[in-house]
Amino acid sequence: MWSASVVGASGYAGGELLRLLLGHESVSIHQATSESFAGKPLARAHPHLRGLTDLRFESAEALTPADVLFCCLPHGVAAAKWSSLAPLAERIVDLSSDFRLRDPSVYQRYYGRPHPAPEVLEKFVYGVPELHRDAIREARFVACGGCNATAAILGLYPLFRAGLAGEERTVIEVKAGSSEAGRKATPSSHHPERSGAVRSFALTGHRHTAEIAQALGNGRPAEVHLSLTAVEMVRGAAATSHVFSKERVTEVDLWRTYREAYREEPFVRIVKERQGTHRYPDPKLLAGTNFADVGFELDQDSGRIVVVSAIDNLMKGASGQAVQCMNLMLGLDETTGLRFTGLHPL
Amino acid sequence: MWSASVVGASGYAGGELLRLLLGHESVSIHQATSESFAGKPLARAHPHLRGLTDLRFESAEALTPADVLFCCLPHGVAAAKWSSLAPLAERIVDLSSDFRLRDPSVYQRYYGRPHPAPEVLEKFVYGVPELHRDAIREARFVACGGCNATAAILGLYPLFRAGLAGEERTVIEVKAGSSEAGRKATPSSHHPERSGAVRSFALTGHRHTAEIAQALGNGRPAEVHLSLTAVEMVRGAAATSHVFSKERVTEVDLWRTYREAYREEPFVRIVKERQGTHRYPDPKLLAGTNFADVGFELDQDSGRIVVVSAIDNLMKGASGQAVQCMNLMLGLDETTGLRFTGLHPL
Amino acid sequence: MWSASVVGASGYAGGELLRLLLGHESVSIHQATSESFAGKPLARAHPHLRGLTDLRFESAEALTPADVLFCCLPHGVAAAKWSSLAPLAERIVDLSSDFRLRDPSVYQRYYGRPHPAPEVLEKFVYGVPELHRDAIREARFVACGGCNATAAILGLYPLFRAGLAGEERTVIEVKAGSSEAGRKATPSSHHPERSGAVRSFALTGHRHTAEIAQALGNGRPAEVHLSLTAVEMVRGAAATSHVFSKERVTEVDLWRTYREAYREEPFVRIVKERQGTHRYPDPKLLAGTNFADVGFELDQDSGRIVVVSAIDNLMKGASGQAVQCMNLMLGLDETTGLRFTGLHPL
Amino acid sequence: MWSASVVGASGYAGGELLRLLLGHESVSIHQATSESFAGKPLARAHPHLRGLTDLRFESAEALTPADVLFCCLPHGVAAAKWSSLAPLAERIVDLSSDFRLRDPSVYQRYYGRPHPAPEVLEKFVYGVPELHRDAIREARFVACGGCNATAAILGLYPLFRAGLAGEERTVIEVKAGSSEAGRKATPSSHHPERSGAVRSFALTGHRHTAEIAQALGNGRPAEVHLSLTAVEMVRGAAATSHVFSKERVTEVDLWRTYREAYREEPFVRIVKERQGTHRYPDPKLLAGTNFADVGFELDQDSGRIVVVSAIDNLMKGASGQAVQCMNLMLGLDETTGLRFTGLHPL
Repeated sequence: MWSASVVGASGYAGGELLRLLLGHESVSIHQATSESFAGKPLARAHPHLRGLTDLRFESAEALTPADVLFCCLPHGVAAAKWSSLAPLAERIVDLSSDFRLRDPSVYQRYYGRPHPAPEVLEKFVYGVPELHRDAIREARFVACGGCNATAAILGLYPLFRAGLAGEERTVIEVKAGSSEAGRKATPSSHHPERSGAVRSFALTGHRHTAEIAQALGNGRPAEVHLSLTAVEMVRGAAATSHVFSKERVTEVDLWRTYREAYREEPFVRIVKERQGTHRYPDPKLLAGTNFADVGFELDQDSGRIVVVSAIDNLMKGASGQAVQCMNLMLGLDETTGLRFTGLHPL
Repeated sequence: MWSASVVGASGYAGGELLRLLLGHESVSIHQATSESFAGKPLARAHPHLRGLTDLRFESAEALTPADVLFCCLPHGVAAAKWSSLAPLAERIVDLSSDFRLRDPSVYQRYYGRPHPAPEVLEKFVYGVPELHRDAIREARFVACGGCNATAAILGLYPLFRAGLAGEERTVIEVKAGSSEAGRKATPSSHHPERSGAVRSFALTGHRHTAEIAQALGNGRPAEVHLSLTAVEMVRGAAATSHVFSKERVTEVDLWRTYREAYREEPFVRIVKERQGTHRYPDPKLLAGTNFADVGFELDQDSGRIVVVSAIDNLMKGASGQAVQCMNLMLGLDETTGLRFTGLHPL
Repeated sequence: MWSASVVGASGYAGGELLRLLLGHESVSIHQATSESFAGKPLARAHPHLRGLTDLRFESAEALTPADVLFCCLPHGVAAAKWSSLAPLAERIVDLSSDFRLRDPSVYQRYYGRPHPAPEVLEKFVYGVPELHRDAIREARFVACGGCNATAAILGLYPLFRAGLAGEERTVIEVKAGSSEAGRKATPSSHHPERSGAVRSFALTGHRHTAEIAQALGNGRPAEVHLSLTAVEMVRGAAATSHVFSKERVTEVDLWRTYREAYREEPFVRIVKERQGTHRYPDPKLLAGTNFADVGFELDQDSGRIVVVSAIDNLMKGASGQAVQCMNLMLGLDETTGLRFTGLHPL
Repeated sequence: MWSASVVGASGYAGGELLRLLLGHESVSIHQATSESFAGKPLARAHPHLRGLTDLRFESAEALTPADVLFCCLPHGVAAAKWSSLAPLAERIVDLSSDFRLRDPSVYQRYYGRPHPAPEVLEKFVYGVPELHRDAIREARFVACGGCNATAAILGLYPLFRAGLAGEERTVIEVKAGSSEAGRKATPSSHHPERSGAVRSFALTGHRHTAEIAQALGNGRPAEVHLSLTAVEMVRGAAATSHVFSKERVTEVDLWRTYREAYREEPFVRIVKERQGTHRYPDPKLLAGTNFADVGFELDQDSGRIVVVSAIDNLMKGASGQAVQCMNLMLGLDETTGLRFTGLHPL
């Protein structure tokens, strides 16, 4: 058994991580920290863990070394505390946005301040296994891809890799659930306001734009235009991406491109059916799973390719992806602890 | 008092129309037809009309002339029956898609069959008062704009009119509620399947594309790329449109452009606030109203303009717009019967 | 035109009251107070009032006399400030729970503290017009019935009045929407937690029990047992009440009892149908309306009578009822400003 | 490996059963039947099974013997076809209501027709392991408890067993999700109608009353009064039960009673907390799990005991309970294949 600790374990991503680790056959939880819940049972913050464990939260001050350390701290905190976190484990998986961007100047532009530890950035691998599996296997430090970014990247990666996207502008529209904003109650998360909303909240300038542009670009940032809309959903992120190709493509080309990219992937499914209710990816079907479902449609007249990709933002968009990365780093079967296949109807 | 009849009055648009007419100070309902509900009280189909009227549905065969005839028939039916409908009223407002496109060949391309009465098309005015108010005032026949089309058109019209949009591709993403699909239960409208869905259902080729292209184009169809996603919502349609301008514009330019276009409009509000929860248009705030809320944001770096526009699909997207057109046709105050201002929270 | 002011106008009940008064043909808004929004336009707190008025919130200190004063203050505040509020208007309608109970000892038992102004209690009439219409007409001070209480009382009143209920225990189960908890964001109102919940939150001891027992009791409190469950809904309250009658009754008896009680009521509808989807009252149909829909079913075997009653908690359960009381107090048509008939589907 | 077949596998309970069996370590799926989907892959009916199996539906005519047969047929069908089903497996678990009632006259009263195979009834054990574990272990035929019945029974069983309930009337109010009505689309399951509803649909006479009365009664039916309300939720059933005890009880008595009853139960948790958002059972936390959460509150003044119990209707209320029964029948660890612990937030 490997040992893993979770720092900042009282948030939603922390709760999912604890759930996954409690069910993991090769890893056990060493410590879980939360300053506000220190001393209390895990279920106090995470009601779905009731009766499953006697573990209690501890203060981060009480941390002792483990094989793997997961950081679920608010954006900016892990980078600021890097010198005290780094010695705690041979392998660190960070779920924040602190170490995702390789170029400190891009970080500054999107986050509005200089990076607190720019020299660390090059030590991190971007944690989307479908793009960087081999590097993750060898990595000591992994920065998990963001939720909206992961949805968009996995939808578009085959097209960019094949040269079918990127020469023209790509527009990405993400529909996001309320859990993306985290556990803290705010006036805008108040149920009477948020329920049933179709709320535009980052029409331009969303920070995940930088990740997507980095991941899809060939050396230099890809030109992607991202907008987000919050919809009535707790879990889930779905990206609708509009790609214009210089080259004329056919449906057959697209099928081949996606199949080649994802044939061996355990967590990416191509979902594109001719009939039935569930013809394209829908996050509704993915709650609790680590799947990224990807589908596409070609507009024969205009050549526009519309790609739909969906994930559970707390799983493939956060804690599931973190465990997937950990599995790779530890040399375990990549799907360990991640085999839940989802519920329908839900 | 003017008299108005509603053909095909048992559907959702019919129900809204009956509600609006029952509360209209200058128009009374002459007849409401439904073949399946003939002989039954209106509330049998429309529970929100309980206790408000003694009117009963009649068969369309029993129709006698009225001042205004509203047609809420399934797409294709009004055109097929045009010769029997036309004599029934001096003024006809059609809510289907039958008479919206001026060019029969465009109809054929989008609807997959020849238009049943192509010679009638030129007699119809496209029923979006913000674009064609004067023509509607003079018209005998009005074809109300479609729901998704109206949302998109009202968001984009100021930019196209001002020459700020149209030279580059425009991508339009509409989020739609379940009432758009009408009253008939289907496997895909079954609550366990539809609840909480983020369902891509017309990624390319949506028929409203033709309307939008016609309305925004300057003589020839504008290049617009439309995709639809059904989200958890019963009423409402929200369009997020991505416009790329050849010319470099500023926020000030955009404010001026939108203010000039909509300053006098009774039903269009510019919603764009710097703080608070409700900074941009949200259909959640518009249920039951005839408002179209419009907002925009400029991406300073790329020049992309993102426009958000929201309506209640059954009101400004159907029956409210139909009454607004009728008011214009009859020389009444345009807002008569349409002054409900919406509920919050809801 | 009469003048009316609203104290504590930035909450949800305040917002509905402002909306109703803006559309009221015989009353105009004199002042609307909010300490946190003082100086700001009404729409800052109430997005559904955008573009409808130039009024701004004021501090309560700026209040000057008006014909009617509506108090929408948190529970306990109006009673504590009674001496400064009373002189501000000839007629006062209080929406809090401060003046609903006639017996100060009952207040103490349910609210856990002595009543701040017990001598005032007898000057107030309990504001449910269906029970106390004549007294409200003559009243200077009215304490509007609470939302859950109003739903339960209007469902049960005919049975208690006719002696068919009250000798045996009555169990009342209220399903409540999230707007009941008011506008303040809390951890339990956080959307990811509250969305889709079926949350028991006052299984015993709910304060509205006292109101219901007082209203239905014949001199002494009726024996009613109330429990509340929060369900996925923003607006609305529905009470399912289980009545056991000593006497054997028939459906015909029940129909007669309810018809006699409510025949002339403008806002109570008996909803009990043999077929169709909407056979019993459902708050979903009542959003924005002042209706209380009431239905019942008799268990032939056991003699149990099950009564369902539904309202919009912010309308008939708060601001609509307050305007109805005001209309009576001012000698106006009771339905003025309250004629919105609801939306379907929604 | 044991082999199991599922008859009537295209419905929602069938889909959950297939999902559980695909993940079961000691049982494999032998056949899955559906007449309408015969020949098609399982995922055609159950999108959450995409990519997990190559199995296809078969016609029931193609059934060959297996170790266990699960019947998920519409009510009435299994009893009518009993003579052809019985030979197909040594052990049969029926999920319909056909074999739950021991007394054919009660069946006739609640189902309106004579039982098609009354002689079989005594061979069946009622499949709620918490009540009949030993009998299930020995049984050849098990009739799984109904969803609403299981929720109510597990909430009330400790009180009835201890003699604290049953002498006075018990009122049970169940809040139910839309998946209870099954997979077939109907006008009342149409999303615009069902979304956000608080719909009373079996105020009296619900068929599960008979099961509850049988399970809780001591030889003769317990006096229970059941009503159901459909609320906005796809999965889940929550029962709020109101018990009046002749004897005066304390909270300590109740804790002891419930702990004694459920101390060793792997799937029943007592949920009763003094603070926090999730103080009582909520089906929202149970989606996909086989848990029944149970909590209670004592009204000190009146002696009323309010019990809240919640389950996932498709799991502990159907397929999860069926697998739990099968595990017992096969001598396996009772929790095999049922260890999913739920998602939060969801």
